[in-house]
Amino acid sequence: MSRESFDVVILGTGPAGLQAAIHAARKKVAVLVLGRQPQSSLYKAHVENFCCLGKIAGGDLLGAGREQAQKFGAQMWDEDVLEVTSGGEGFVIRTESGREVAAKSLVLAMGISRNKLGVPGEKKLLGKGVSYCVDCDAGFYRGTKVAVVGEGSAAFSGALTMLMVASEVHLIYDQASVEPTLAGQVEAGGIFVHSGRKVKAILGEKLVEGLELDNGEILEVEGVFIELGAKGAVALAGTLGVMMDPESMQYIAVDKKQATNLPGVYACGDITGPPWQVAKAVGEGCVAGLEAAAYAKDRRG
Amino acid sequence: MSRESFDVVILGTGPAGLQAAIHAARKKVAVLVLGRQPQSSLYKAHVENFCCLGKIAGGDLLGAGREQAQKFGAQMWDEDVLEVTSGGEGFVIRTESGREVAAKSLVLAMGISRNKLGVPGEKKLLGKGVSYCVDCDAGFYRGTKVAVVGEGSAAFSGALTMLMVASEVHLIYDQASVEPTLAGQVEAGGIFVHSGRKVKAILGEKLVEGLELDNGEILEVEGVFIELGAKGAVALAGTLGVMMDPESMQYIAVDKKQATNLPGVYACGDITGPPWQVAKAVGEGCVAGLEAAAYAKDRRG
Repeated sequence: MSRESFDVVILGTGPAGLQAAIHAARKKVAVLVLGRQPQSSLYKAHVENFCCLGKIAGGDLLGAGREQAQKFGAQMWDEDVLEVTSGGEGFVIRTESGREVAAKSLVLAMGISRNKLGVPGEKKLLGKGVSYCVDCDAGFYRGTKVAVVGEGSAAFSGALTMLMVASEVHLIYDQASVEPTLAGQVEAGGIFVHSGRKVKAILGEKLVEGLELDNGEILEVEGVFIELGAKGAVALAGTLGVMMDPESMQYIAVDKKQATNLPGVYACGDITGPPWQVAKAVGEGCVAGLEAAAYAKDRRG
Repeated sequence: MSRESFDVVILGTGPAGLQAAIHAARKKVAVLVLGRQPQSSLYKAHVENFCCLGKIAGGDLLGAGREQAQKFGAQMWDEDVLEVTSGGEGFVIRTESGREVAAKSLVLAMGISRNKLGVPGEKKLLGKGVSYCVDCDAGFYRGTKVAVVGEGSAAFSGALTMLMVASEVHLIYDQASVEPTLAGQVEAGGIFVHSGRKVKAILGEKLVEGLELDNGEILEVEGVFIELGAKGAVALAGTLGVMMDPESMQYIAVDKKQATNLPGVYACGDITGPPWQVAKAVGEGCVAGLEAAAYAKDRRG
């Protein structure tokens, strides 16, 4: 099988991966970006807190970044990655179409998959009232009624944040798993707490109109924040040997140069942990791209 | 004298400071940004490598960020800061108009002052052929003749970068101060080296047209990159007690949360060291703003 070679291969086409591609390509190394852009969690979202852009649709942002990366010479293949292994003098990536790619250095920018509730309406109404990030989207729900779902600190502190923005806040969880201080703040704060409850369905056709609980109760809300934490990059780490952050054990551990424990492997964006913000992603992408390009250059013949 | 109080005070109005202001203000804390925007090194520059914006004028970028920060509730005072001290339950800032401001937490985002050559034409032609950053601006000089000025590794590796972009590259320094490997690459590479030379003047009326050396020689170039390293934030660190990065001793040392050694003091952007990129600045600004807001909230009554 033919194998194409690149200096830097970037896994992921969100803002972190695109910014890494822009900076690496400007260093005159051969750059390939792998991944399907619609899979970026930004694709269907709206952004209003990224300096200095005002309010913009995620898809537009990503499209512009893609053009920019290509203009500087990065190649982009709209393919998922099946496997990454160490091999030869670098790494070998196998894509879903069966192509093999050799890379001198790797940038991991695949983001995270947010944990889903798995209830009717959740997928259909994503970006139309369903959100996985209070910090990102709170501002869109000013003066409205919202629900936050989750039993951990992300959900509890998210509900407190929404209390300052929304007109009415419901918090739904089965069994709480938070520190007493935070639980006390939630109790004191005027939040409608539904403990011992699960969500049965998210209601609405084109926009969220409500939430059905497992006891049949209907909450009329326009926004549902699902704050269940995030799935980790553990699967990838397993095959390649990339170390996880010891505190969370679900994000990739990096130093200030965005380097992982493996020489030549860098990581950036949501995959290295919160805050899950476009600004943080491009900042880390910039550093990772420059470092990966320098690493690859040092290993040229 | 009356003293106004804020939760978070941000020193600096470049992309790092603005992004910090946006994220802090969205956390519903009282935010003040201090500084004169035209002093940002971005103000007169052009940016083409910031995802996902294409090519944009620095002044436009900063103006948009300013509006965005104000929209989320941040106040902006166009004033320089004369002094920052620890005091009361936080910090006290004295501005050039004599106002005193109390802050629960501080974000240092003043950037760095690039070292200048101090020759005729340098100031007048800034952004019109004169640049202080090869990595930022190389792409604007494709196929042209350029000069890089400086005796350290930034200048030497900058000249090598320009060799892949420009049609002719001159490197000017008095006495080299670089490792032999890098010096060898420069010698082997087809760069016109002017050692033992100083720059007497940068020539041109509206755009750079050339460079005059101290032996009277004239180099016809369209671009002059001044790569003399950067002045540090040592002065500020002295009065406040902020620790410098032990490697460089000229940038502020921060951890992954952009926290300095002083509780409640965060730093972001160029002031924490290279790469001097807008993307890196907003990434750090995002984290610093969120952390400073959380710190200030914890200290509310």
